[in-house]
Amino acid sequence: MSTVIPPLPWRMVLASSSPRRRHLLHGLDMPVEITKVDIDETPPPGMPAAEVAEHLARKKAEAWEGKLADDQVLLTADTTVLLGNLLLNKPEDAADARRMLGLLAGKEHVVVTGVCLRSSRKTVSFSDRAKVLFRALSAGEIAYYVERYSPLDKAGAYGVQDWIGYTAVERIEGSFYTVMGLPMHRVYAELKLLAEQAR
Amino acid sequence: MSTVIPPLPWRMVLASSSPRRRHLLHGLDMPVEITKVDIDETPPPGMPAAEVAEHLARKKAEAWEGKLADDQVLLTADTTVLLGNLLLNKPEDAADARRMLGLLAGKEHVVVTGVCLRSSRKTVSFSDRAKVLFRALSAGEIAYYVERYSPLDKAGAYGVQDWIGYTAVERIEGSFYTVMGLPMHRVYAELKLLAEQAR
Repeated sequence: MSTVIPPLPWRMVLASSSPRRRHLLHGLDMPVEITKVDIDETPPPGMPAAEVAEHLARKKAEAWEGKLADDQVLLTADTTVLLGNLLLNKPEDAADARRMLGLLAGKEHVVVTGVCLRSSRKTVSFSDRAKVLFRALSAGEIAYYVERYSPLDKAGAYGVQDWIGYTAVERIEGSFYTVMGLPMHRVYAELKLLAEQAR
Repeated sequence: MSTVIPPLPWRMVLASSSPRRRHLLHGLDMPVEITKVDIDETPPPGMPAAEVAEHLARKKAEAWEGKLADDQVLLTADTTVLLGNLLLNKPEDAADARRMLGLLAGKEHVVVTGVCLRSSRKTVSFSDRAKVLFRALSAGEIAYYVERYSPLDKAGAYGVQDWIGYTAVERIEGSFYTVMGLPMHRVYAELKLLAEQAR
């Protein structure tokens, strides 16, 4: 069992515009600096859907042009929703969001969140997956959710931490936080490992 | 499929001192009034551990002495942690919290949340269960968590929505919100049913 005592000795640099990831990462009790990075998020042709999230997370980390001090770790992430082999990204507009929710309703899908951690010494990446079961949704419920919550910034057009997550998610198998956008237990374990290696 | 359009036509009366339940119930987009009720939470001798949560939720609803208008629904709830047949309630002090976390570490346990909904016309109760897998925890991690987060108001001495939930919960099977203290999908479904019956 590890002898590293929390909180871990890192200053985090989070390259993400997701308020959910900001909220979660702050919960690890380390300083968090917010930055941004823009990449083309189109997956390479032929890449299996389940590998896209980790690929994009790594691509974001590689594209970031800042400099890291020895006690800083850059975190990038990407979340994808898979319905069978169908990859659902962020919806284009409200109609696209309603279409996606109609596809997810009454079915089980898989959420994959990929993460890349980059320190001045090394870069590691991984992904975590969780299953999510939605109940059936009426057209009125879908319309209400899309109009009131405007989930255009979310893969699969839903937030597990808002109204639709409350009322429609019947069951999760895996990490709730992977569905929300950051597999916290894996992030913590990898940061602890990096801290042990750096001692 | 239901023809009741959200938000549901209820004004909720929540008899709970849990800030987590207040936060969650507000997320159903109905008005929420906070009230309180005090009961003896000792389970009846011989009651199976898995039935205690729903029993206490019902007992709280029955003990509440306020009056409900036709569009009001009282919600009471109770959450228990079961490690095998061992029932873990709220810890008595920091040492008890450390003891409980030591028991949960590296193992799977079950969280049962019981809910009672009482309107002017009828009373319904139900419970929902979820499995939670904790990784192994070091003594330093347990001490850090108990000192910094003081989880004395939480069954099993942990909050799935705070530092220990982030770093130590590897997997959930069931509803995350049942673990947090309110099975939201079940609450919504029962409130929708009550609304349909009231039309």
